[in-house]
This record gives sequence, C-alpha cells and structure tokens, in this order.
Amino acid sequence: MQLDELLASVHADIEPFIGEGKVANYIPALAKIDPKKFGMAVVTVDGDVHMIGDATEAFSIQSISKVFTLTLALGRIGEGLWKRVGREPSGTPFNSIVQLENEHGIPRNPFINAGAIVVADTLLSGHQPKETLGEILSFIRYLTDDDSITIDAEVARSEQLTGFRNAALANYMLAFSNIHNPVEKTLGVYFHQCALSMNCVQLAKAGLFLANNGRLSRSGHGAVSAERARRINALMLTCGHYDASGDFAFRVGLPGKSGVGGGILAIAPGKAAIAVWSPGLNANGNSATGTRALESLAKRTGWSIFGAGRN
Amino acid sequence: MQLDELLASVHADIEPFIGEGKVANYIPALAKIDPKKFGMAVVTVDGDVHMIGDATEAFSIQSISKVFTLTLALGRIGEGLWKRVGREPSGTPFNSIVQLENEHGIPRNPFINAGAIVVADTLLSGHQPKETLGEILSFIRYLTDDDSITIDAEVARSEQLTGFRNAALANYMLAFSNIHNPVEKTLGVYFHQCALSMNCVQLAKAGLFLANNGRLSRSGHGAVSAERARRINALMLTCGHYDASGDFAFRVGLPGKSGVGGGILAIAPGKAAIAVWSPGLNANGNSATGTRALESLAKRTGWSIFGAGRN
Amino acid sequence: MQLDELLASVHADIEPFIGEGKVANYIPALAKIDPKKFGMAVVTVDGDVHMIGDATEAFSIQSISKVFTLTLALGRIGEGLWKRVGREPSGTPFNSIVQLENEHGIPRNPFINAGAIVVADTLLSGHQPKETLGEILSFIRYLTDDDSITIDAEVARSEQLTGFRNAALANYMLAFSNIHNPVEKTLGVYFHQCALSMNCVQLAKAGLFLANNGRLSRSGHGAVSAERARRINALMLTCGHYDASGDFAFRVGLPGKSGVGGGILAIAPGKAAIAVWSPGLNANGNSATGTRALESLAKRTGWSIFGAGRN
Amino acid sequence: MQLDELLASVHADIEPFIGEGKVANYIPALAKIDPKKFGMAVVTVDGDVHMIGDATEAFSIQSISKVFTLTLALGRIGEGLWKRVGREPSGTPFNSIVQLENEHGIPRNPFINAGAIVVADTLLSGHQPKETLGEILSFIRYLTDDDSITIDAEVARSEQLTGFRNAALANYMLAFSNIHNPVEKTLGVYFHQCALSMNCVQLAKAGLFLANNGRLSRSGHGAVSAERARRINALMLTCGHYDASGDFAFRVGLPGKSGVGGGILAIAPGKAAIAVWSPGLNANGNSATGTRALESLAKRTGWSIFGAGRN
Repeated sequence: MQLDELLASVHADIEPFIGEGKVANYIPALAKIDPKKFGMAVVTVDGDVHMIGDATEAFSIQSISKVFTLTLALGRIGEGLWKRVGREPSGTPFNSIVQLENEHGIPRNPFINAGAIVVADTLLSGHQPKETLGEILSFIRYLTDDDSITIDAEVARSEQLTGFRNAALANYMLAFSNIHNPVEKTLGVYFHQCALSMNCVQLAKAGLFLANNGRLSRSGHGAVSAERARRINALMLTCGHYDASGDFAFRVGLPGKSGVGGGILAIAPGKAAIAVWSPGLNANGNSATGTRALESLAKRTGWSIFGAGRN
Repeated sequence: MQLDELLASVHADIEPFIGEGKVANYIPALAKIDPKKFGMAVVTVDGDVHMIGDATEAFSIQSISKVFTLTLALGRIGEGLWKRVGREPSGTPFNSIVQLENEHGIPRNPFINAGAIVVADTLLSGHQPKETLGEILSFIRYLTDDDSITIDAEVARSEQLTGFRNAALANYMLAFSNIHNPVEKTLGVYFHQCALSMNCVQLAKAGLFLANNGRLSRSGHGAVSAERARRINALMLTCGHYDASGDFAFRVGLPGKSGVGGGILAIAPGKAAIAVWSPGLNANGNSATGTRALESLAKRTGWSIFGAGRN
Repeated sequence: MQLDELLASVHADIEPFIGEGKVANYIPALAKIDPKKFGMAVVTVDGDVHMIGDATEAFSIQSISKVFTLTLALGRIGEGLWKRVGREPSGTPFNSIVQLENEHGIPRNPFINAGAIVVADTLLSGHQPKETLGEILSFIRYLTDDDSITIDAEVARSEQLTGFRNAALANYMLAFSNIHNPVEKTLGVYFHQCALSMNCVQLAKAGLFLANNGRLSRSGHGAVSAERARRINALMLTCGHYDASGDFAFRVGLPGKSGVGGGILAIAPGKAAIAVWSPGLNANGNSATGTRALESLAKRTGWSIFGAGRN
Repeated sequence: MQLDELLASVHADIEPFIGEGKVANYIPALAKIDPKKFGMAVVTVDGDVHMIGDATEAFSIQSISKVFTLTLALGRIGEGLWKRVGREPSGTPFNSIVQLENEHGIPRNPFINAGAIVVADTLLSGHQPKETLGEILSFIRYLTDDDSITIDAEVARSEQLTGFRNAALANYMLAFSNIHNPVEKTLGVYFHQCALSMNCVQLAKAGLFLANNGRLSRSGHGAVSAERARRINALMLTCGHYDASGDFAFRVGLPGKSGVGGGILAIAPGKAAIAVWSPGLNANGNSATGTRALESLAKRTGWSIFGAGRN
C-alpha cells in the first residue's frame, strides 16, 4: 500500500475517537484550541512528504522541543551533559520533584521538566536568553529548511505567569548547584522553547535526522553522528512519554516525544519521521488520538522497532 | 565481516575487562562461580549458531527466566495479565517494595521481582508447583529443541532459604489480593524458575522467537504472534535492566533481559538472538562485561534498533 | 468537681457522637462488635478507680499491647533496643513498608507494626512463642493484679489468617537481618499479643505505672525506673497514634496509645491512667468517640501535659 | 537546689562537650560564629531570671521565630490556619519537598520550612513585608518588654541570596495555590523573621507565655488563651525538632523549638521558659550541646512533662 492510502486508513481508524481526551487548560492559549483538530505528517528518509488532516496548521509543540534542545546541548557540551542529567525513565509524572530530592538535584532524564530545564541552562551558559532562543530557532529552521517557524510570544508569556512548579524545580536544582545561570533566565529560555509553534509537516521534517542516522535527507549533511541519533532515539523510547513511556513502547513501538499541546513526534529509524497532532490528552498528559494514530500507523507499516518488518 | 570474526573482535574488545564487577554472593551456589568466565552466542534468524568463549557452559539464568514465564502467562491468560501487573519502567531497584505501597499492590512491570512473582502466580493458578515448573521446563525445551536443560535444585533451595525480600513482596501483594495461590507455592515456582541452568547457546536459541516475529526459526512454527513478540521486546527494552534500563538502551540499543547470574539475553529483531555470560555485576546488578560485549556487538553490527542499519 | 461527676459530664459531652466512625472489619471477631459500646475508666495514682459506661466489658486491646511489650523488651535488653528500632514519629500509616526500604529495615518506632514486630522478636529470642506469650500475660496480670486477663484465641487465629501485610513487614526486616527468629514464631507472638482481651478498668490499671514514675501504686513497687516511664510516655505522645499523633497531642495533650479494637490508653503523669473504649474508628484508625472523650476529660481536668494545670 | 546552682551543675555537665557539632555554614554570617559559645537562661513563671554563660550575647534565632509567627497567625486567622498547614510530625528533614508533592502542597506542620512559609504568607496577606515584619518585631518586643531586639539585616540578605530551596518550596506551594502573595514578598518576610537577633534571656522571656497558660507573667496579661498555649506547646513537642523531634521528646521531655543558629527554646509548663545557645549542630541540624544542656536541666529539675515531678 502507498503511504497516502495508508494515512487515509489510519485516519479512518481514529476518526471515531477524534475529540477524546482533555485539552490542556493550564494556560488560556492552549485551552482555546478546538479539540477536534487532527493532523498527521510522514516524511520519509527519501524526503517524501505525506500528510492528512490539519497537518499544516501550527500548534504549540511544548515538550517536543526538548528533543531539539537536547540535540543542541549534546552538540555543545557533549557527553559531559550526563553529569548533570540522567538517562533513566523516572517512573514519575513529568513535573515531579520527589526524585530530585532523593537524587541530589540530578534529574532522571532530559525529557522530564527538571531535566529539560537543566538542558536549557547548559545552552544559556552566560548568554542572554534572547541569543539562546535565537540559536534554538536557527537550528529548527535549519533542520526544516523553513524560516517561517516562530515562537508564540503569548504562549510563552502565559507559561511564565503560571509556571510555578517549574520555578520550584529550577530553584530546587539551583540549591544543589545544578543550575548555573539566574533562575529567571534559564526559565525564560525554557518557557519560550516550549512555545515554539510548528505544524505536523514542519515537525516531521525537523525530526527526520533522527530517522536517518543523523543526516538531513535533503542534502545528506549530518546534523549529528549516527551514534548520537541512535542514542537520542533510545532516550525518546525509554523516557519520551513520562510515566507512560512503557505503554507507548508497548503499543506503538517507536521512539516518540509528546507535548501537552497534543503533538507527538515519532521516529521510524531508516524509514521516516512522523508528526501527529490532536489536542485531547489522556490521563498521562499525552495526546489520546495521536497515540492511537501512531499505533495504527505502526501496525499497518510494520515499522515497530521491536519487530522484524512485515509479519 | 562474518559473524565469527565479529565475535572474535568483540572478544578482543572486552578482554581487558574480564573479571570486572562483583559476582552475586547472596547464595553460595552463585558466589562460587569463577569471575573470569565469559561466553557469548549469537543465533541468527536463519538458525545459524555462532559462539565464543564459555558459551557452552551452563549458568543460572535467574531473572532472564522472567521473559519465558511472561510469554507463557500471556499465552494462558492473554492481555488480562495487565490488570495484575503494569508495563512501565519502575525507576527503582529490582526488589523495591515502595512502588507497591503507592500503587495498591500492582507491580510496575513483569520484570521486577514483584511482577515476576505475580506472573508465576498466574501460571500456578491452582496447580501444584511441580506441574507448573514442568510446564515452564517443557516450554524452554521446546524453544531450544534441547531436553537436557534442567533446574538446579541446589540453587533453588538456596534461593528459598534467603529469599525473604521476595517473601515480603509476595505477602504484601497478597494483602492487596494480587496473589491468588498460597504464598509458599507461588514463591516455590518463582525460586525454581530462577534456578534454570542454561548455557549461552541454549539461551540464545530460546530467545530466537523474539527476533523472528514470534516464530521458531527451525521449523517456522509460531511460538507467539508477531505482535506479542514485538510487545515482549518492548517490555525488555524499557524494563529489562531494572533502574539501568535507560542506560542499556542508550549504550546497546537492543531489547535485553539480565540476570544476577551474569547472563543477558538480547534481541536484534529480524536478525538474531544473542546471549552473553560474565558473572561480575555492575552497581545495578547487571553483568558488567556482558553489557560491554553487547555494546561492542551492536556497534560492530549496526543492529541497534534505534539506527538505520550500518552508518 | 469529683472524678465521678466529671466522668458523667464527659459521657454527656460525647453521647451525641456514640456510634460514629467505622468498626474495624478486617477480621470477623472485631467486625461483629456493637458500634454503640462506650466505656471509660480512670485510675488515679492513689489507686482510686472511677468508671462509666461499658468499662468492665472486655475488648481486643490490639496495638495498645505494644506499650506493654515495649516495656518488657526494655527491661530485658535495655537501651540496646534502639539499635533495632527508632524512636521518631513515622509520618506514615501504621502498616507502611516504604520507610523500611529507605531506612534499611529499621522501623521508625516501636508503635508502628514493623517496630512492634521487632519488639516481639526481641522478647522471643530463642524461646517458644508460648513461653513468650506466657511472660507477656504474666506481666499484664502483675500490673493489674488480675489473673482473669487472657488472650482471645479466636481473634489471634483470625489475625494470623489475614496478616499478610505484617508477614510482608517481618520478611522484609528479616532480609535486613533485623528479625532474629523464624518469621512464623515472631508473628505468632505479635498476633497473639494483639489479641489480648481486657476491659477499661484493667487497661487503666495496667498503664498506671506510667502515670506514677514507674511505680505500681498499690504497693509502691517499681515496674520500671522513673526515667524509663517518662521515656515510654514520650514515645506514646510522639508515636502512639501513627500519622495522627500530632493531632492527638494537639487536641488531647496526653501520651496515648490506640488500638484498632477501639481502645485508647492515655497517661496523665502524676495524676492517673485512663482507658477508653468505643469501637468506631476515624480515618486514621483511632477510636473516634474515644478521642473525643479524652479531649473532653483533658479539658475538664486540666491534665494536659502542655498546660500549667487549671487555666 | 536553687536554680542558679542548678544551672552551674548543668554547665559543668556539658562543659566537656562545648564545641562539639558543626556550625551552620550556609551563610557567612552564621559560619563565623565561635563554636565554643554557650549560654542558657531560665525565666520562671514568677518572672525570675537565671542565666549562665553567654546568655546575654545575641545570636540568630532562625527557626525559633516560627513559634512567634505561628502564634501571631493563629491570633489573626484562628484555627482556619489548619486548612493550609497540617499539625503532624513530618518524619522528614526541615527542608523536604517530597511530602508537599504527595500531599497537594499542604505542609505537614508549621515548623518545617514549608509550613513556616505558609504562616508568613498568612501574616503578609496583602500588606508590605516591611509592615508584617514590623508587626512580628512589635510582638516579640511586647513579649519581652525589650525594644532593643532587632532583625540582623546582613543575615537576612544572606538568607535571601542562598535560599533557593525555600524559593523552591514557596513556588511549589504557589502551584497548589497555597501561597497567596507574590513569592518574593512572602519569602522576604520569612528570610527576615529568621534573622531575628536575640540573646538567651530575651528568648526565654519571649517564650514565657507558653509556660504560663498564655499569660505574660510580668503583668498577668494574656498573650493567647490557655488552650492555645497548650496547643502550641503540643506542636513544639511533636514537630519542633524536625525528624529528631521524637528523640528530643525522649531525651529532654519538654516542648522545644530549635534553630540552625544553635538556639533552642524549651517550655516547662507551669514552671519556666528556657533558652539555650550553642552553635555546633548535630546531624539533624539541632544544637548538640544545647540539647545536652536541656537534657541535664530536665533531669535535675524533674520538669519533664512526661513524669510526675521529682522521682
């Protein structure tokens, strides 16, 4: 079956479920999104783009941004990053602080909030937040070859006004000397990176290097080494869906990273990068219909990394 | 490069490290093993067997047995098993009881001790331990086509005499009605399954169905469905190394299950099943040199499930 | 006001609440108790006995027995006991196992179940449970000068049949070598001590030495030193009501120990020992009306240890 | 024995230990204190003042201030305070955040940092920090009849510069809507109250109302009701020494509140208020020699609230 037909079948599979789940409502900018939105894009390693539904409508990528800031941070400080953040599943919700107390201010992995705040802190390292955000934006634009991608200032402002739990995490890690810049600046970067606004096609393009041994397909240029791409994928698989990472691996079988905006970026190594968007969230804070769509896609394509191709 | 040469290279890679780590000493039968043992076997989906070092010397597979009992339990009661055990990484050591208290006696996954005890309990379901152990042994012998595999009675007895923490876990779950048979019987099954004695070649053969979409390669007969094989692999990846599962995924990139006897079973879907044995354990209770050997093998073969084949 | 009148006033205060709370139902022998029972006895340091309601009807003293076994254990092994059990409030429910994992099998205090099981284990120390129970019974009979007090065999049997969580605690501590006898024997002592059957008058008499600097009032003979009596009172105050100890201190202001049978023993140092019984329990597992009655008594007498006598 | 002689005996008892423990070093102003300082003052309910050692040298009272702000807050909003803060021992260190996550942002008691921050927040309630601090200072000056007491601005500034963990606690509770003012203002009050500078005589005078059924002895005027005084004493007993409260009750037997500056305020209801100061802290962050001195005093006076007067 061709990918376009296949996407249509996936769409049919999930149609009865569109609208399920609960739209994130902690900031007004997210709460007002239409829960019936659904989009999906698949970009193959050959660079072919396939899409369905609202795949060209921008949404707030939120925590999916953590994949890109991690990539940048590894590029800047290399494996030394792992002195400041672990790489184990946390077994706790995305914003838990309990683990930090027991483990001396070292977050379990770069995809829970505390870990991503440390990653943002390494990127900042003495610069102004504006410069660091410029760098993040440039990287995303380079990956996608699309200069229209921006940060939604209203969302960023809202995050900042309500991000007390993140402020608690940052201050807590500062008390363990695991934040090196002023808390406000580090959080400034973090809140803005979460407010990146992208559509499914852009997001799938941005993630393609992870499916392609670290290379951008359009040119063959490397974004990262093949080994680093594999390792980032491994982290997405074990930690990308917080305390539902095991379930996502079990059901979908692809490395993935979700955001409370309802987006998920998934990677089929050697095949494609996939982005899906549906705002309703399940109990663990991951897109409910988005997960279903990926489950259907993985089943129909045999792309699960845990199988031997088509059955 | 051919696999035999490749195994020789892996052997050369890890040679300087043989003997590192600490041999499990909680029971005499394990403590007396020579720490310098090292064996590795690779069985490809075509059925070819490659080996190096002490690959035909039997060792106690311990927690690796959990993969086979899980497979049997899913065969017997199907997905209903997930009402009694979760499928998320625990973020805690293999024998932690904390999580059970917070989550009403439901273990996080079938690979931590508490979860495996529940799995053993489902297999027992009213039978005598002897019958259940017979069934487990038959399954392993069927998978390997090797009737010489047995349970080491001395090891089993030692486990029973020192397994107080496991007795605590079982009684605790019983208090939440998540153990259905008399605790002694359920633990009897559990302690004996851990005492299964196998060598690397036998272990790799036994795991091959997981690399082969659920089919036994020798005949093409199916042990489980392709979907179930994928799901078991997913669980091995996210939960197979306790609170070092993330690190194993990061470094090796293959679904794997370790045992305190120093064995690890790893699966390269579509390619091969791999068994390695080296008794010295790292701080997380996983074979230190065994992990190194798998890391070297994955790098040299490009078998990581997170990459797109050879770089 | 005389104590008899005062008890009548207390009775009037709590009358509207008789029957509130939930009778413990985990064993049939406790579940069948009439929830409207209420008795109270005050024995002054002069030996005068005052009582009201069902004060001569026997009930299962349950965890109140921990006061007497602690006293015996301190008599036998002295302050060395504190190497095996702490003396801090636990901040967790009576049967929590979480704290044990974090603190290497050393229970926080002798009044949570785990701590009382260790205390029972020290009393057993190589003897048969029957002998140890004989010793406990002799001690209670000596304190009360009443040989009619017995252990309810039916209650003890029921406890044993349902005490899986206690079995988990004991096995868990055994894994840390903090249980020195066979688990069954230690639990045998523990389950039987909890099944001690006493009425309010007997219970108040048994506790009187704690109000009287360690001396039995009837003869002036010392049960324990004045310092030990003070210390046991301190432990009752900080730990005697599990995770509601702070609230009991706040409202009543007397050292006290509760049991799930609905009894509470409270000590007014230099004045009296008080026993109250009302089977309905509040959310923390302490007698609801019993606590009210003690609050009323403390207010009317000015016996709170936190005040300077009558206002 | 007269109190002056008695204090001399206490002094002799503890002399060999002067200098033990570790002076708090998290802010320079505390770190530079001479570890050999020792002072003690006893103010009886008759108003007699007895002292020994460095009893008129001012030190930073730190967390002892929580007793006075709690008293003020209860005066202002009454028992409604207990909706925002609990009254149970926490079983965890003074600055733990774990309990907050498990209990929805409600601190266990008003004497751990999180609880005291909530108390400060209730006192602030829309006012400026300066006004609230003025009120706290007025209250202390009123209790002591001593207008020379001040806040050490340098200490307050240092606290603010290093108080990241407290900032984490405040932000965390804000996320649960349990902080009602801007975090900086609430923390401003908290950091300054901790910087109150008092000597032992002043501190004992300030606490005397708690020994005297709520009345200031000099005039007989009431600071609080007798019931409230009792309740504050109860909280000091169960929660005043963090996770060593049980041990302090066991050894000393008096309600007490410690501070990392090395001070302890203890209350002997109906008898006296006692203040002791010795900067070296034990492992739980309480004055090591100060605790010894109170233990000696309680033993020599028979003032323990758990005994029946002199043995």
